[in-house]
Amino acid sequence: MVEKRKLEGLIAAPFTPMAADGSLNTVAVKLYADLLAASGVKGVFICGTTGESASLTVAERMALAEAWVAAAAGRLRVIVHVGSNCAADAIALAQHAERTGADAIGAMAPYFFKPQTAAELVAWFTPIANSCALPFYYYNMPSMSGVSVPVAEFLALGGRAMPTLAGVKFTHNNLMEMSQCLMLEDGRYEVLHGYDEILLCGLSLGAVAAVGSTYNYAARVYNRLIGEFRAGNIAAAARLQQYSVKIVEVIVRHGGGVRGGKAIMKLMGVDCGSCRLPLAPFTEEEYAALRAELEEIDFFNRVK
Amino acid sequence: MVEKRKLEGLIAAPFTPMAADGSLNTVAVKLYADLLAASGVKGVFICGTTGESASLTVAERMALAEAWVAAAAGRLRVIVHVGSNCAADAIALAQHAERTGADAIGAMAPYFFKPQTAAELVAWFTPIANSCALPFYYYNMPSMSGVSVPVAEFLALGGRAMPTLAGVKFTHNNLMEMSQCLMLEDGRYEVLHGYDEILLCGLSLGAVAAVGSTYNYAARVYNRLIGEFRAGNIAAAARLQQYSVKIVEVIVRHGGGVRGGKAIMKLMGVDCGSCRLPLAPFTEEEYAALRAELEEIDFFNRVK
Amino acid sequence: MVEKRKLEGLIAAPFTPMAADGSLNTVAVKLYADLLAASGVKGVFICGTTGESASLTVAERMALAEAWVAAAAGRLRVIVHVGSNCAADAIALAQHAERTGADAIGAMAPYFFKPQTAAELVAWFTPIANSCALPFYYYNMPSMSGVSVPVAEFLALGGRAMPTLAGVKFTHNNLMEMSQCLMLEDGRYEVLHGYDEILLCGLSLGAVAAVGSTYNYAARVYNRLIGEFRAGNIAAAARLQQYSVKIVEVIVRHGGGVRGGKAIMKLMGVDCGSCRLPLAPFTEEEYAALRAELEEIDFFNRVK
Amino acid sequence: MVEKRKLEGLIAAPFTPMAADGSLNTVAVKLYADLLAASGVKGVFICGTTGESASLTVAERMALAEAWVAAAAGRLRVIVHVGSNCAADAIALAQHAERTGADAIGAMAPYFFKPQTAAELVAWFTPIANSCALPFYYYNMPSMSGVSVPVAEFLALGGRAMPTLAGVKFTHNNLMEMSQCLMLEDGRYEVLHGYDEILLCGLSLGAVAAVGSTYNYAARVYNRLIGEFRAGNIAAAARLQQYSVKIVEVIVRHGGGVRGGKAIMKLMGVDCGSCRLPLAPFTEEEYAALRAELEEIDFFNRVK
Repeated sequence: MVEKRKLEGLIAAPFTPMAADGSLNTVAVKLYADLLAASGVKGVFICGTTGESASLTVAERMALAEAWVAAAAGRLRVIVHVGSNCAADAIALAQHAERTGADAIGAMAPYFFKPQTAAELVAWFTPIANSCALPFYYYNMPSMSGVSVPVAEFLALGGRAMPTLAGVKFTHNNLMEMSQCLMLEDGRYEVLHGYDEILLCGLSLGAVAAVGSTYNYAARVYNRLIGEFRAGNIAAAARLQQYSVKIVEVIVRHGGGVRGGKAIMKLMGVDCGSCRLPLAPFTEEEYAALRAELEEIDFFNRVK
Repeated sequence: MVEKRKLEGLIAAPFTPMAADGSLNTVAVKLYADLLAASGVKGVFICGTTGESASLTVAERMALAEAWVAAAAGRLRVIVHVGSNCAADAIALAQHAERTGADAIGAMAPYFFKPQTAAELVAWFTPIANSCALPFYYYNMPSMSGVSVPVAEFLALGGRAMPTLAGVKFTHNNLMEMSQCLMLEDGRYEVLHGYDEILLCGLSLGAVAAVGSTYNYAARVYNRLIGEFRAGNIAAAARLQQYSVKIVEVIVRHGGGVRGGKAIMKLMGVDCGSCRLPLAPFTEEEYAALRAELEEIDFFNRVK
Repeated sequence: MVEKRKLEGLIAAPFTPMAADGSLNTVAVKLYADLLAASGVKGVFICGTTGESASLTVAERMALAEAWVAAAAGRLRVIVHVGSNCAADAIALAQHAERTGADAIGAMAPYFFKPQTAAELVAWFTPIANSCALPFYYYNMPSMSGVSVPVAEFLALGGRAMPTLAGVKFTHNNLMEMSQCLMLEDGRYEVLHGYDEILLCGLSLGAVAAVGSTYNYAARVYNRLIGEFRAGNIAAAARLQQYSVKIVEVIVRHGGGVRGGKAIMKLMGVDCGSCRLPLAPFTEEEYAALRAELEEIDFFNRVK
Repeated sequence: MVEKRKLEGLIAAPFTPMAADGSLNTVAVKLYADLLAASGVKGVFICGTTGESASLTVAERMALAEAWVAAAAGRLRVIVHVGSNCAADAIALAQHAERTGADAIGAMAPYFFKPQTAAELVAWFTPIANSCALPFYYYNMPSMSGVSVPVAEFLALGGRAMPTLAGVKFTHNNLMEMSQCLMLEDGRYEVLHGYDEILLCGLSLGAVAAVGSTYNYAARVYNRLIGEFRAGNIAAAARLQQYSVKIVEVIVRHGGGVRGGKAIMKLMGVDCGSCRLPLAPFTEEEYAALRAELEEIDFFNRVK
């Protein structure tokens, strides 16, 4: 079994920077990584939902992985999402991630033909995880994948077939299930909390690491929240969580965490451009409205 | 506006006791109330999902309300669920609850014709809530009702139309929404946490009361959890929550919180009989299996 | 086994007439029945979805059944929907229907606690169907009930437990399943087609009777469609079906088949009042808009 | 606008032949095309759901398109499915299809980020459709894509943005919507019927072409059905449709139209191998059971 240094703290799920013509902008990754490292983020989960991996070609995903590993320069753990509906593509991406020097891989369930059982999901992931030696995190996000396999059962079964199975990125509201994953085999598996707006709940249940899109631009708020939680000041942590809810309310009004969040990133100084279709381009009017809504909640001061 | 003494602590959602022939067994309510009061429960939310209100006639629901108010005898707050797809029945039940001396009413959204917006839901509840002077709690449970109206928006709008609107029984996994409800108008509305297996999450976010079915038989576990939480021992609270998850895993294997829970109640000394159809009767073999599974997790000692 | 005269032709699902104050208006039923009989309708399926049974008290449902049996006066077959989440209420309604002289009963699955299998659904219906001697039709409408039990399996299993099981009111888009029901045991069970806007599909597959809400006011269009179908003029039948689609498009814009359809009924001369909450009252502005939209498709001439 | 020769009759959605090691087997395509042409099929819709396009690399999809165009040799119209979540890949596939000599392209909606409105879907498809001059069919299949945009609205709007928009492959149970598409702008758009087991319904409503997976091996049954329909023998057509239902019942028991159907193809003489993961490999035991079930319904004689 591969040695695993467990993840702890905040892992940002970066937006994928794109140029004005919609092409990949790997140049922006260096500045992006500097900003994340400075904000207290511990790692990046690249090319996932927030990274619009479904909208990228395989070649672009590989180029992006190379850019992030280079830019992270040891300051940030780099987890590369290699999930695809095509197993051959997923394997190619996993092996490329390993060659590139990434720290781990993650993958969402296939979402066209949808596995119905834990056994089917294990059968799907086994050749992918076993194609390289990097730790593997299952990316559980039923709201996007439509795959609702019991996660603890998947981990229990999967650990036997995939020696590198490290845990789960748990992006789901079912926190009883998160508890089940945390309890499993005396905490053998890492459970990366997934919904930023309820991070405090995950911490309370025992999660110690979290992956999310708002950590790209508001990591300091969440690190304060974690600090209050660790100090036993739950009420103070809850107030910071409520502030995070207000941020999320803003991005929801602007198309959600990917589209709205990507626009915030530009306001924070890293121009990642617009999302690719089918997510609509962000207009100048929208940027102005977004900025005004953020100022109304004193966002730019609070995320400093 | 009616004066409202806010709810705090555990509110059990009682099973409805039935005799061997399936008829209502109001006699058992006295013993049931004694047991609850002794276990540290603060109130009861009767005739809800757990109480199988949908399977009862209006006359039975009234008889049950009378039995509970009498048995509670001031030791337990009594909230009567008056929800129905028929507004006339709901109004009759609300007015009866008031005459009977209940402390509050609650109601689920109608679930045949389903309101789509907060405004429609307010229009539905206004004549019901305003038919009596008791505090009114909206019972939000999208998994059963199929009604997914934004709750904070409902409260904000509903507070203007219904002076007695006291808050929401929030039985849903969307804890960001729970935060929104807690924040609303500086905490004007009570938010009764609804999923027992994630109570710690609700407490972390600021909820101070909870309604649930496992508080019928495991209130002491949850009161210990609340105690650890209040003392700042979150890790200890999380372990108690994990124990609650194990209880819930048992009831899920036996048909869920209503059917499996009702059978546990018999093992705890209050024979509530079987559920009514469409929930299948509980067989002797099932009782034996249930007892064995509970013993395996040391249930009977831990809930003492 | 009870002798069954099979249903054939159009069965209207009547709106429930209500007075200006929202109370039941049984007086209107006589005129309503005259109009239906004159339009070529063969029967009525009362107190179903269109009849807002979920919004009526049990007493009102009984009063309505009495009014319809009296008004039908042998000209229309009367099927009384007795479905309820409360088995005791359903049985009371079934026995009342029989005493009243109805021709048959129908019932939707319980939709609060939802049966998951054919066996559970048979267990639910058996005491209800067997409480009287009238033919029993299972009312399958997953879009409203949320119950998706395989219907052919239900019929096959149910026929053994319920000697009166006559068939199914099949209100669903799954026409492969309708074929399965039609094929079952050499056509033993009646399959009442359920979505008016695709009646031609049901006829093509072999259905000979249909229950629907637009037959209340547009029976002549559908009888012409049936006539063309019987004469082998499928293209002409398809054109009439397309006209029915245009009618349905209008009612969808006005809140759907129940709310919009009830308003059309007033324009046809039978004032059934507004729907009960949670369906919103119909305003004068809406009546004007509805009339204009109907005139635009030459409705009032075509349904003559 | 490109000149469009409208599709008519049966279009098979071929399985993608794979070798024993799981690699693409383009060699089998020639035999496959001969068999289809001999069975009365008029065209092929390749690389769609049945063709497991989501499980293929872009390079494999291109190789397959080349093989089919070559094998069709003018006997079969070749529509190449170019849908992808990545617009760049879809455009590359569309332009390749045109260069290769395909007759048309089709594309499913993106199913990771899901368009919510007709306008969003038109915005997505416009650069793809306009990247080549081939007729474009929108492949509407909400059960797989999770995208439920009103199709007639999409066509009406899309026809202005995409001069090549030819119609829709309508794979959905909502036959009212199919009627709306058929009616639109006096039948401007082709509506390719999509669920084989209810083909008779589509024909009744006016569809004249159909795309499906069972036409790969049972085209003669369906051509007989079409013949009876054209001759006005609807009852005879309905009996043939019931036979098709029996075939579909068999494949459903074996994993559905893709997995079970691909196995039938081997029994018919074209060895397409197993499906790729996440669809499980077909075992020898399963082949034996499948053959027995097909023989029980006299399949091999009836599809001759």
